[in-house]
Amino acid sequence: MSEQAASRLDRRRARTRAALIGAAQELLAEDRTNVSVLEITQAADVGLGSFYNHFDSKEELFQAAVDQVLEAHGELMDRVTEGIDDPAEVFARAFRLTGRLHRRLPGASRVMLHHGPELIMSDHGLAPRALRDIKAALEAGRFTTADPELALVAAGGAVLALGQLLHDQPDRDEAASADALTADLLRMFGLDAAEAEEICRRPLPDLDELIAPASDA
Amino acid sequence: MSEQAASRLDRRRARTRAALIGAAQELLAEDRTNVSVLEITQAADVGLGSFYNHFDSKEELFQAAVDQVLEAHGELMDRVTEGIDDPAEVFARAFRLTGRLHRRLPGASRVMLHHGPELIMSDHGLAPRALRDIKAALEAGRFTTADPELALVAAGGAVLALGQLLHDQPDRDEAASADALTADLLRMFGLDAAEAEEICRRPLPDLDELIAPASDA
Repeated sequence: MSEQAASRLDRRRARTRAALIGAAQELLAEDRTNVSVLEITQAADVGLGSFYNHFDSKEELFQAAVDQVLEAHGELMDRVTEGIDDPAEVFARAFRLTGRLHRRLPGASRVMLHHGPELIMSDHGLAPRALRDIKAALEAGRFTTADPELALVAAGGAVLALGQLLHDQPDRDEAASADALTADLLRMFGLDAAEAEEICRRPLPDLDELIAPASDA
Repeated sequence: MSEQAASRLDRRRARTRAALIGAAQELLAEDRTNVSVLEITQAADVGLGSFYNHFDSKEELFQAAVDQVLEAHGELMDRVTEGIDDPAEVFARAFRLTGRLHRRLPGASRVMLHHGPELIMSDHGLAPRALRDIKAALEAGRFTTADPELALVAAGGAVLALGQLLHDQPDRDEAASADALTADLLRMFGLDAAEAEEICRRPLPDLDELIAPASDA
């Protein structure tokens, strides 16, 4: 096979895989995982046989679909907090933006809500980054909370539950809600009220520039 | 049919329904809802035909199983907070006990975790009671947080996520963790640190006396 043909094949394989993962993310977001592999390949518009070139089972595909949402979110959080020195502000920015993303990326948000509390202790996505930031803020004397894992539980549970509230109340202002909740968390971790609110009023990077439309599930 | 025979039949029907709901709660706790009605009736040790005397579909059974867990929990919280006047303490007691129940009733806890964030806005169980207590504490000037629904989101998300942490870390002290998290939430809602901690050190009713062994899923 020529190099050109091999590269065409690679691109086609990548497209098939992406189509399967996209279909799985839609099914996860709609809580419709009780479907056959045939139905998944039909939703992805790929041949039934090509499924097994990529995944051994439906479960493996769904796991890959969740991991991809978490990794994309984690990488986005790395980009938007790059160059910020204060771990309290890194934490705040990630949570203020994650709150807004429930509206901006509703498919990815519903995948996260469907997986719920187990994500909070996951090694992927926001959780390990938030735990790192909480520990750094404790070491720097910015936070005074006693138990970083309990702090992660409180923050992660709250930001997931905020997604549910925003989906249930489509008219609720997601930016104001995310900022108020983040300020509450900062106060809970030991910042005084005035500083917590000031940090949560600081300008944020533009999400439109950061998210390509295709990146939603 | 004699009255006696009718009452025997009623008891038998109730036992069948309870067996089906118990089997559904076990499947929910293990995240194994992708099963057939036949498998459910086998797990419940009842005849396949009797399923449809009680439920039209698997989905209806699983919904009934979740509602029963939530209602049992809500009623327990009503009993353990009866006669307490301070809404901040009512809130605290319900959250301190709910945290402990993740260990004491692991099946019910896993049903709640499986349903995750959507329970936090549910009309059943702890959520409507917590929202009522938060609003009462705001009216009484005990809490100063601006938005009771955001407060519910923070508290509900945290107490669910605590369950995940306790299941992931079997050696973690559930009483100390639940009390520390509740004190954090009370501070977040406006109580000063000393009072929040004092409220979370007050004696609790004995859970063993409140929970019959059969009430776990």
